[in-house]
Amino acid sequence: MLCIFCSTKIDGPFIPLEVRSLFLNKTIQFNQNQEGAMSRYVANMNDTIVALATPPGTGAIGVIRVSGSEAIALVDAVFHGKPLAEQSSHTIHLGTIREDNGHILDEVLVSLFIVPKSYTGENVIEISCHGSDYIIQAILQLLVKKGARLAQPGEFTLRAFLNGKLDLSQAEAVADLIASSSESAHSLAMQQMRGGFSNEIQKLRQELIDFASLIELELDFGEEDVEFADRDNLKTLVEKIQGLIRALIRSFQLGNVMKNGVQTVIAGRPNAGKSTLLNALLNEERAIVSDIAGTTRDTIEEVLNIQGINFRLIDTAGIREAQDQIEAIGVEKTLEKIRQSSLLVYVFDVIQTQPEDLRADLERLLTAEMHLLLVANKMDLNPYTKFEHYFPDSSTPVSKEQWVPVSAINQMNIPHLKEKLYQAVINEEFQQGNTIVSNARHFEALQKASESLDAVLTGLASGVTSDFVAMDIRQALYYLGEITGEVTSDDLLGNIFGKFCIGK
Amino acid sequence: MLCIFCSTKIDGPFIPLEVRSLFLNKTIQFNQNQEGAMSRYVANMNDTIVALATPPGTGAIGVIRVSGSEAIALVDAVFHGKPLAEQSSHTIHLGTIREDNGHILDEVLVSLFIVPKSYTGENVIEISCHGSDYIIQAILQLLVKKGARLAQPGEFTLRAFLNGKLDLSQAEAVADLIASSSESAHSLAMQQMRGGFSNEIQKLRQELIDFASLIELELDFGEEDVEFADRDNLKTLVEKIQGLIRALIRSFQLGNVMKNGVQTVIAGRPNAGKSTLLNALLNEERAIVSDIAGTTRDTIEEVLNIQGINFRLIDTAGIREAQDQIEAIGVEKTLEKIRQSSLLVYVFDVIQTQPEDLRADLERLLTAEMHLLLVANKMDLNPYTKFEHYFPDSSTPVSKEQWVPVSAINQMNIPHLKEKLYQAVINEEFQQGNTIVSNARHFEALQKASESLDAVLTGLASGVTSDFVAMDIRQALYYLGEITGEVTSDDLLGNIFGKFCIGK
Repeated sequence: MLCIFCSTKIDGPFIPLEVRSLFLNKTIQFNQNQEGAMSRYVANMNDTIVALATPPGTGAIGVIRVSGSEAIALVDAVFHGKPLAEQSSHTIHLGTIREDNGHILDEVLVSLFIVPKSYTGENVIEISCHGSDYIIQAILQLLVKKGARLAQPGEFTLRAFLNGKLDLSQAEAVADLIASSSESAHSLAMQQMRGGFSNEIQKLRQELIDFASLIELELDFGEEDVEFADRDNLKTLVEKIQGLIRALIRSFQLGNVMKNGVQTVIAGRPNAGKSTLLNALLNEERAIVSDIAGTTRDTIEEVLNIQGINFRLIDTAGIREAQDQIEAIGVEKTLEKIRQSSLLVYVFDVIQTQPEDLRADLERLLTAEMHLLLVANKMDLNPYTKFEHYFPDSSTPVSKEQWVPVSAINQMNIPHLKEKLYQAVINEEFQQGNTIVSNARHFEALQKASESLDAVLTGLASGVTSDFVAMDIRQALYYLGEITGEVTSDDLLGNIFGKFCIGK
Repeated sequence: MLCIFCSTKIDGPFIPLEVRSLFLNKTIQFNQNQEGAMSRYVANMNDTIVALATPPGTGAIGVIRVSGSEAIALVDAVFHGKPLAEQSSHTIHLGTIREDNGHILDEVLVSLFIVPKSYTGENVIEISCHGSDYIIQAILQLLVKKGARLAQPGEFTLRAFLNGKLDLSQAEAVADLIASSSESAHSLAMQQMRGGFSNEIQKLRQELIDFASLIELELDFGEEDVEFADRDNLKTLVEKIQGLIRALIRSFQLGNVMKNGVQTVIAGRPNAGKSTLLNALLNEERAIVSDIAGTTRDTIEEVLNIQGINFRLIDTAGIREAQDQIEAIGVEKTLEKIRQSSLLVYVFDVIQTQPEDLRADLERLLTAEMHLLLVANKMDLNPYTKFEHYFPDSSTPVSKEQWVPVSAINQMNIPHLKEKLYQAVINEEFQQGNTIVSNARHFEALQKASESLDAVLTGLASGVTSDFVAMDIRQALYYLGEITGEVTSDDLLGNIFGKFCIGK
């Protein structure tokens, strides 16, 4: 099936939803081909929905959220205190929730948000009740009996999106924000929720749209050979936008790291001091250490937060010819972990390790995508060890920047190692304030937009006709619009909002 | 150590707290002997406290509660939107929470409750933020940095109590309300929270106080032989109050059942159909049933809710001479469960069971405190079985009221059995609207008050002097006052509020 406007092939069913589009200020109208996962939302946008907004379980307070045109009337029917319909927005009212027979379910505080000054852009009531499962279920049931519908996951935020309170990227940031577990993940989500990323995308898109409209105009003149859009200017513009998009694409690696942490493997030969290093980094006795080579068998995983970034440290069994069956499994696991990791902390001791062994190990383990830190351990026992001793040849794949001399057992130089870990991830391109992409969906859309812009440039170079150029520009606009939700599909919405918790 | 006012011996340390007392409108002042568990509360009543009020975990919303004289100034220092100090009570404000460097922690809604119109009777602010552990911890830390203190368990409700917003029995009901898992438990807690029970106790106490003040007056006249309080009237009054207190004491069994459910054991000989009966009551295939005697070995526990009361049904192994070691353990467990239960559902089949066997079983199993239902099973196979066949002698300890003929496998008469279960628990004394005691602490205090009143009556009968009568009345008043918190001790408060969740 093709989009009737931009001719892009799109799989899956669509919702019969007029999607707002900035593209030439036209409205994109999708055909509906079959009932999709999200159709139930759209069909019921006029319902008043209700759900528990706080985590389930026992607590002092539970908050039940009601949203929709009937929210106030519906709660008024069960709330005894004062008539809510007569109260102002953003006010709080004490009263009781009662069943039809007068039985009191709870004493509650009711917060009133009148359209459009609410999260969803509809009338919203939040009922703050005692945090008992029994009471919460009873109130939910009572409201459903009065005509509300239990909300689907993410339905409150979906309504906020459909009512124009948030764009798609901001809506996604709400979910990221709730899930964030480190300062960097939190900052990214907060920046995105407050519209930083959306603004950047919309700016790019607007520049392209302005130019595209001239090309579209050429098409309207059909056979006449006119050129409203200067091809050189277009090329310059597309190259500029392409540069910005590529920077965003590159930022994804960092964004992903900030959001999800860095898989960091500590590897090396037996007795190099890997577990001692892990303990030194964590500043606690996490792993069992001994002088006996091969003490660690299972991989041990711990999270270390350095300047807001979560490093998922994995201590592994030493790499050597295994002495027994159990150790063999351990070594195999280590190699697998190294292959999956994005940052390898290779530990060796500066007393026993021969340069050729070290170089052989690195050759065997290193892959192109992997960041490496080379930790020279037990420096207290051999303090004059130099990088050049191990890598006399300047053609080595390892640079002196990656060399970190430490003594794990004495905590010597551990702060420097932490700084090196941080630098390995936060590359020089990143500067405070730069927009960073952290969402895989946005990353993919940017890549596709970038491909379309490549096609535009190729087309311009080979002098294709306006309609081909226009088609490629439309595609780029389509993919950029997908990020903020200016163009969207049923599947996409289902994918995004289905991942929300109920009540959001 | 003795209370300096009522001379009652009280163990444990006291808080230096002026406890409000209705007793002769004097204020009871306790001595403090050592630092107790609750002293930290009292010492810091001027602090502004903060805690998460919603359950921990990830959700759409988390609510952070701040209470104390500095609550508004403290939140104002981190909230960017509008100055909260200038806003009215019971209003909601949108804004951001920012760290000192301007970094935004979250977009939040702030609800304002100005003294005394709040839960604690102090200035209260509720911050409704995104339900992420990271954000919640960050906001809590920021508020602590600004001068708030993390609240102890139950400290918000303790402040409500100390500020006279709730009495002690109402405060306890808040905890019960949050923990309630059945309609009956919920109704009890709600009635208690709304002051029904407190009113009853205070009425009794006031009547006693009015009379006691006359006796105290006699004491003031020292050696002169005057009688302001008519002894006959006093006796009548004490007897009346005693009657009311005893009714409350009796209601505790029911209150306990309503709050905690009824331990109900299904017992009988092997193959009587106990597991089939359990399945029929639950209307699901919970227990494995077969024709083979001794199918059930482990006890199976399930909760059945009948008209709001939770029955904790326990299916047991059949009672017989055990065939093997495992069955012997099962039978021993059964006997233990029967001894612990308050309601025994004895099942027998009407085909094979001999009257003398049935009577022998009952003689062996029944205890004085236990309620019994006699379920005659497999009635479909022997429909003309009569109670009199098994109990021809009218001097039997079992009455026809306890006889319930059923066919478990055909679901025959199961609704009638459920009704009988309910009636076995809800005795005729209970009527809608009666006050029911459900709290073990109140039960004990009532029992002690009742003992003191007994002593008053004994004293009056034997014509003891006013000072002895006065002492016993004081004791009765003391125990009644303990229920609502008009008299209280450090230990008592620590016991009650220490059981609350943090944030309440």
